[in-house]
Amino acid sequence: MSQHPLAQHLAQVPDFPKPGILFSDISPLLKSHFTETIDAMSGLFSAEEWDNIDCLAGIESRGFIFAAALAYKHNKGFIKVRKPGKLPNVHASIEYGLEYGSDKLEMQKGDGSRVVLLDDLIATGGSMGAAAELCEQVGYKVTGMACLIDLKALNSFVYKDMTVRSVIQFHD
Amino acid sequence: MSQHPLAQHLAQVPDFPKPGILFSDISPLLKSHFTETIDAMSGLFSAEEWDNIDCLAGIESRGFIFAAALAYKHNKGFIKVRKPGKLPNVHASIEYGLEYGSDKLEMQKGDGSRVVLLDDLIATGGSMGAAAELCEQVGYKVTGMACLIDLKALNSFVYKDMTVRSVIQFHD
Repeated sequence: MSQHPLAQHLAQVPDFPKPGILFSDISPLLKSHFTETIDAMSGLFSAEEWDNIDCLAGIESRGFIFAAALAYKHNKGFIKVRKPGKLPNVHASIEYGLEYGSDKLEMQKGDGSRVVLLDDLIATGGSMGAAAELCEQVGYKVTGMACLIDLKALNSFVYKDMTVRSVIQFHD
Repeated sequence: MSQHPLAQHLAQVPDFPKPGILFSDISPLLKSHFTETIDAMSGLFSAEEWDNIDCLAGIESRGFIFAAALAYKHNKGFIKVRKPGKLPNVHASIEYGLEYGSDKLEMQKGDGSRVVLLDDLIATGGSMGAAAELCEQVGYKVTGMACLIDLKALNSFVYKDMTVRSVIQFHD
């Protein structure tokens, strides 16, 4: 499979954040090709699909980058899915397992809006799946999920028949 | 002084994150008026000033929202100013004082680009000033600073003759 041309602007950093992990750093890509990156993510959904989206929800903190730029591009609302303790008036929270330990996400009350969830990267799908559950718990309707990089394209994460769409896929 | 009309969409939350603090929650504004908010922040700089900006730097994590949307709008690069331990290949870090304790920001190496720093809110200017110092340390040229909300408009934070521009000002 040929790789998306934007992938060449990622930096592959060995042993970060811990030994044995090869980290895909999006920093050089976002600095040199930000518009192209956002336009490529926008292209993951058809014009008709965009018409049926009310808000983009970004998962803290790199998900904020993509959700904000896409919300501006498509004139949608922006919603935060935050780490614990940052958000006032939290309506619900969800805990989910990590490779070591666990993490937690929080959201305010929703209003039935149709949202697409955004993050920078998906590996196991743990945070994306938890964020999708949480969106529905607080009262949003999840109509899509997208990220820049999918690390497990051969065995993609699926939530209620929806796959996570991505621009760049790396296979293990 | 009359208040910017977008201010009415903020939620004022008493006693968050601790007793005695009145927190300006941007969540309802970003959900209902995201495009208008970004356009108002864009208007803080003239067309000629935008021509002389290469990149927008967002201070983690709410600064990412504004820097990303404005970078997309103006076809600029996006740069992250991050909290400790999140960024690989850190070139420099800076510690700065908070009301209680201290915080730290980290950046990768710069390349002489002209950047505008973005955050959601400025109170004492501690994190904005630290981020500006850090930008220059790693090799960027800070040409502007902006945020959505200025809590101390009567005594604004100044960095090297630059004030922090803002859309909404609250006076104590």
